[in-house]
Amino acid sequence: MKTLTVVGIGAGNYEGMTVGAVRALEEADLIVGYTVYCDLVKPYFPGKEFLSTPMMKETERCRLALEQAAAGKKTAMICSGDAGIYGMASPILELAGEYGVSVEIVPGVTAASSGAALLGSPLTCDFAVISLSDLLTPWETIEARLEAAAAGGFCAVLYNPSSKKRADYLKTACGIFLKHRAPETVCGVARQIGRDGEETALMTLAELAEYRADMFTTVFIGNDSTKIIDGKMVTPRGYRHE
Amino acid sequence: MKTLTVVGIGAGNYEGMTVGAVRALEEADLIVGYTVYCDLVKPYFPGKEFLSTPMMKETERCRLALEQAAAGKKTAMICSGDAGIYGMASPILELAGEYGVSVEIVPGVTAASSGAALLGSPLTCDFAVISLSDLLTPWETIEARLEAAAAGGFCAVLYNPSSKKRADYLKTACGIFLKHRAPETVCGVARQIGRDGEETALMTLAELAEYRADMFTTVFIGNDSTKIIDGKMVTPRGYRHE
Repeated sequence: MKTLTVVGIGAGNYEGMTVGAVRALEEADLIVGYTVYCDLVKPYFPGKEFLSTPMMKETERCRLALEQAAAGKKTAMICSGDAGIYGMASPILELAGEYGVSVEIVPGVTAASSGAALLGSPLTCDFAVISLSDLLTPWETIEARLEAAAAGGFCAVLYNPSSKKRADYLKTACGIFLKHRAPETVCGVARQIGRDGEETALMTLAELAEYRADMFTTVFIGNDSTKIIDGKMVTPRGYRHE
Repeated sequence: MKTLTVVGIGAGNYEGMTVGAVRALEEADLIVGYTVYCDLVKPYFPGKEFLSTPMMKETERCRLALEQAAAGKKTAMICSGDAGIYGMASPILELAGEYGVSVEIVPGVTAASSGAALLGSPLTCDFAVISLSDLLTPWETIEARLEAAAAGGFCAVLYNPSSKKRADYLKTACGIFLKHRAPETVCGVARQIGRDGEETALMTLAELAEYRADMFTTVFIGNDSTKIIDGKMVTPRGYRHE
């Protein structure tokens, strides 16, 4: 059976790719992906054939990759971060049957992990991962999940915290957390993780509500035990150190 | 300043390590870790010096690594999965100041991602990560988070679902989800991810309540939209495929 490999490339730098991801892309005849991600990995795989489609064309991109795999071409589809976390693994699995193609998924390091490593250790505790994009999920559902995460004492990672059309979504999300947590709660943001212009910032929950995130930002909201230690955001796991 | 590198090694096989993790361990003079994880990576770094401590000796292990780094030895501490998700990043950051050692964290692929890739794509949606171990978190807190995740419609990943002393914790957790989700809700388990004896199974939420998990198992609980497609557990992202 023909196989399509869906590969999580991590943040986008070579260091952040797994050995398995590198191998899968080296073995592929064709790499399909969103234009920005193709441009990120091209330098590491010189001479490789790439096929890219712009954002918002996800189904088209999936069908393109599946057609190529069905035609017998060794095809890899790339996703940023992990293939299964807001990535292309689900739409590919939904469509693969139509093409008689089997699917192999190579996991990657998601922004929750790569961003956390830059900030310190904000997630060494139970946490919730929530996307603020309402393109595919109704905003009421997102709000209910923010409310549940805030009330449940979860640390939270917010993906897609903002875009031009959704400039105030992060503020709204912070407002929900502020109902359950102190304004001084430690929060952090990581931008352009693993890419040129990588930067992080620590701030309070009250400050985060006024922060202007962009689509390259991942947001971390601490819980009641999160603190700053030597400039790092740390949620203690709970060990008693003697 | 002396530096200690905390490295997430992923599931434990070479393919699952990032290029950055491999490089960090190749450059280290000494690798410190829990015995099981040291044994997993030893074959990939022949001739390297290892120092291992048994489970439950986390603070001791951290202090050992920090002492060695402070003494000028290039030291890497390894954690399974990601260093920041139930890993050693937090205790190391809490203790590093005592030793005058700076900390670098190399993120890795956590079991939520590596297990999901084996099962299909159970997490391509908002999700919560919860450990059922009550060694460091009171059980009432864990129950409150399970309740919040279930009520909030999150897919859930359960780490440390069971041990000899906590044989019925998974059943209790499933009972909480069953208050909010149908008994037919699609669930899955992944055991020994990336290691000898790797296996997965799909089952309903009602069946999961009776499943005998062990400490090598990661548990995935779907939400109302999770389904089985060609033997894979898939939570659709919500794209409308035309």
